[in-house]
Amino acid sequence: MSAPTHEPFDAIEIIRTKRDRQQLSPEQIDWVVDAYTRGVVADEQMAALNMAILLNGMERTEIARWTQAMIASGERLDFSGLRSPDGVTRPTADKHSTGGVGDKITLPLAPLVAVYGVAVPQLSGRGLGHTGGTLDKLEAIPGWQANLTNQQMMDQLSEIGAVICAAGSGLAPADKKLYALRDVTGTVEAIPLIASSIMSKKIAEGTGTLVLDVKCGSGAFMKNEQDARELARTMVDLGRDAGVNTTALLTDMSTPLGLTAGNAIEVEESVEVLAGGGPADVVELTVALAREMLAGAGVTDQDPAEALKDGRAMDVWRKMISAQSGDPDAALPQARESQVVTARSSGILSRLDAMSVGLAAWRLGAGRARKEDPVQAGAGVRMHAKPGDTVQQGQPLMTLLTDTPEAFDRALAALEGGYDISAEGSDEARAALERPLVMDRIS
Amino acid sequence: MSAPTHEPFDAIEIIRTKRDRQQLSPEQIDWVVDAYTRGVVADEQMAALNMAILLNGMERTEIARWTQAMIASGERLDFSGLRSPDGVTRPTADKHSTGGVGDKITLPLAPLVAVYGVAVPQLSGRGLGHTGGTLDKLEAIPGWQANLTNQQMMDQLSEIGAVICAAGSGLAPADKKLYALRDVTGTVEAIPLIASSIMSKKIAEGTGTLVLDVKCGSGAFMKNEQDARELARTMVDLGRDAGVNTTALLTDMSTPLGLTAGNAIEVEESVEVLAGGGPADVVELTVALAREMLAGAGVTDQDPAEALKDGRAMDVWRKMISAQSGDPDAALPQARESQVVTARSSGILSRLDAMSVGLAAWRLGAGRARKEDPVQAGAGVRMHAKPGDTVQQGQPLMTLLTDTPEAFDRALAALEGGYDISAEGSDEARAALERPLVMDRIS
Repeated sequence: MSAPTHEPFDAIEIIRTKRDRQQLSPEQIDWVVDAYTRGVVADEQMAALNMAILLNGMERTEIARWTQAMIASGERLDFSGLRSPDGVTRPTADKHSTGGVGDKITLPLAPLVAVYGVAVPQLSGRGLGHTGGTLDKLEAIPGWQANLTNQQMMDQLSEIGAVICAAGSGLAPADKKLYALRDVTGTVEAIPLIASSIMSKKIAEGTGTLVLDVKCGSGAFMKNEQDARELARTMVDLGRDAGVNTTALLTDMSTPLGLTAGNAIEVEESVEVLAGGGPADVVELTVALAREMLAGAGVTDQDPAEALKDGRAMDVWRKMISAQSGDPDAALPQARESQVVTARSSGILSRLDAMSVGLAAWRLGAGRARKEDPVQAGAGVRMHAKPGDTVQQGQPLMTLLTDTPEAFDRALAALEGGYDISAEGSDEARAALERPLVMDRIS
Repeated sequence: MSAPTHEPFDAIEIIRTKRDRQQLSPEQIDWVVDAYTRGVVADEQMAALNMAILLNGMERTEIARWTQAMIASGERLDFSGLRSPDGVTRPTADKHSTGGVGDKITLPLAPLVAVYGVAVPQLSGRGLGHTGGTLDKLEAIPGWQANLTNQQMMDQLSEIGAVICAAGSGLAPADKKLYALRDVTGTVEAIPLIASSIMSKKIAEGTGTLVLDVKCGSGAFMKNEQDARELARTMVDLGRDAGVNTTALLTDMSTPLGLTAGNAIEVEESVEVLAGGGPADVVELTVALAREMLAGAGVTDQDPAEALKDGRAMDVWRKMISAQSGDPDAALPQARESQVVTARSSGILSRLDAMSVGLAAWRLGAGRARKEDPVQAGAGVRMHAKPGDTVQQGQPLMTLLTDTPEAFDRALAALEGGYDISAEGSDEARAALERPLVMDRIS
C-alpha cells in the first residue's frame, strides 16, 4: 500500500516475499539488484532482504538470476579472441579460492598453468580479516603494481599468459556495494549470496574454464563439510548454467596450507615451490588445481608437476612479476621482531588450528581490520611443524613475526588452545596422518 | 574481528547471535537499543537484526528487556497522584487496540469510563494504511486540537477524566525510530517487535490498568487466531512484568466494526453510541472494554451500559471535545461525491471483508499512504448491511464517499470479491450469524 511511483516493483513487497519463504520472480530479482545499485532500494531494505535470504534460502533459478542481475550491473570482459604473440589461440582458465590461512596457491599456480599455453587471468582482491589477500602478498615484492588497465591485462595475458592483478571496479558493481553491506550486517555467510558474489565476477570476467577451490574447516568461511559442499555445488551449477566450464575441489582448511601465513613469507614459500621444492601440501594442491584447469582448457596430455621441477613455471613467474614493475630478484621485506613458540611436550603434532594461526598472523599485522588499513609485508607466522610431524618438548613450533612487538601477546592469546600434541600411535595422531587435503571433486 | 572502539559491544556480533538462533543477553539488548537511538548502530544493521528477530523469534525475557530498553530511551509519565478537582484519587485505565477497520471504539469508550471516576489517558496516533487513526477521526471535528502539553493533559485528566491526544515524542523515542525503520523493511509483522513497541509506550505512559483489544481477521495486523493469541499473551506478560494491571480481549476483525469506515462518519457513529443508540457491535465492544477497564481500576459494581443510555457519557464527551477547542455541536465535514454499491442478488450477507472495506476507504481518501499525506475528513465507506443481515437484489449495500471522484474506480476494485451473499439457511449464512465479536479474554 505504498504511494504510486515510477518503479515497477516495491522493495517492501519483495522483502515480504522472501521473508514469507516464497520464490522471487526473475523480474523482481532484476529490479531489486538494479534499483539497489541505483540507490532506489535503501541499504536498510537490502539488509533486511539479505537476512531473509540467509535464513530462508533461494532456489537454484533464483540464485542464477540474481547472479545474472549482478553481471548486468557492470561491464563484461571477453577473452575469446586471445592469442599468443606468435598467433596461437590461448584458451583461458581461472581459479577461485574461497579463502584460507596460508593460501598462496595462486602465486605458483598462475605461471604454472601458463607454461602449457593456457592463459590465466587472476583478478584478485585484498584480504579482510584472518585470510590474507593475494594482492597483499604480491605487494611485498618491491616495485610490484596491482593495478592494470584492461588493455594492459590483455597484453600481458597474450604475451606472458598469466596475470594477477586488481579486479577493476567495472565488473559487477552491484556486488561491490552488496558485499560492503553484507560485511556490516552479519549477512556474509549466506550461501546464495556468497555463490552469486563470486560467480558474478568470474562470469563477467569471461574465463572459459573456472576451477573453484572450496575450503572447509576452522580457517575457512565454511566450517563444515555440508555447507562447503552446498556452496561448491551451487557455484558449479551457476558456472555451467552461464556457459563456463566449471569444476570444484573441496579441500581441507582445518590447518594452514604450507609452513607460512603472512605476506612476504608466503611469497618466499611460493618461490620455493616454483623452484621445485616447497611444502608437500602446497605442491600437491597447486598441481591438483593446475591439472583441473588444464583439463578444462583441453590440455590433458601433460603433467604440470614437471614444469615446477624443470624451471619453466619459474620463468613465467619472473616475466609476470617483471611485467608489473616488480623485481623478482629483490630481497623481500623482513619483520623487525620475532618470537618463538616452543612445544610444551613431546609426541605427534595432531592439530594445528587454521583459525588460530590465521588470527595470530592477522594480529601480528599481516591482515587488516578495515578496508583502509595498511598491512605489514614482513609480519606473520612461520610454522616449523605440521600435523602428523613428530615434535620434541622445547622444540620451536612457530616463529611469530611483526614490526609491532606489542602485538605478540595478542597473537599468543590467539594461539592458546590452537594446537595439540598427542602420543604416538594414539587415535588423534593417526587421524592427523590420514587426513586428505583434497576431500572431493565436484563437477 | 572489527577494530577496537569505545563501545562495549559490536552490532555485527549481536546480529549474528540472533541470526544463529541464540538468545541476546540483557546487556546486548540494552546496548543495541541505546546505540541505535544514538545512531552508532546503523539503520541497515538494525534492519538485519529485525529480520532475524522476525524469523527466529525472541524469548519472553528478551522481549521484556527490549521493552525496558525502549522505555529507558525516553521520559516516563506518572499518574499515580492524579486527583479530581474535589480531591478524590483517580485511578487510571487505558485501552490499546491493535487496529482494525471501523474501529472508533476509543471515542465513546474514554468518556464512558471517565463517568465512573477512572481517568483515561488515551495517547493516540495517526493512521497509516487501511486502518484509520483515532486522531484523524477526531480532527474531523471543527476546531479540535490533538497536541497538548503534558501539563494540559494532566489538567484535563484531573478535571474531566478523559483525554485523547497525540502521544508526545518524549515517550520511547527508540520505538519511534525503530517503527519507521520496520515500516520500510518488511519487518512490521514480528510479534516481539509489535508487542514491545506497543507496551513500551503504554508502560512509559504510566497507566495503572491497561486493556488490550487484540484484533484478529482479514482487517487486522494478525490474520489468524494463533498469531493474535500469541501477541495478546506476549503483551499481557510484558504489562504484568512491568507492574501494569493488563488484560486482553481477542476480538473479531474479519468484518468492519459498526456501519462506518472513515473519519467524520466514524465520529458521527460514535456520537450515536454516546446518545444511547448506534450499531450493536460497537456498543457491545465499547461496554465489554469499559467493563474490563473499570474492573482493573477496582470499579466492579457498576454497569457501564447505563451511562451510555442516561447521557452521562455524552456529557463527558462534550467536555472532553470542548477542552481541546473542538465544537461538539458543529456540523461535521461531508464528502462532495458519493456512489452507491448495490447487492447483486438476494439472500443473507454472509461475508463483508474488513480488509476490502478498509482498502476502499483508504483509496477514497480516508487514510494516507505516507506519514506526511493529508486525509479527507468526509471520505470513507458507509455500510447499509452487515454479515447476517438479509438483503434484496439491487438494495444499497454501501455508499462510497470522497472529495476526489476519480478514486471511485479503485475503491470499487478493492471491494471486488469483498462480500458474499448466500442462500438463507446455508452453512455460510449460519456461520455469519454465529460468529462472536469477543472471541476470548486473556489475563
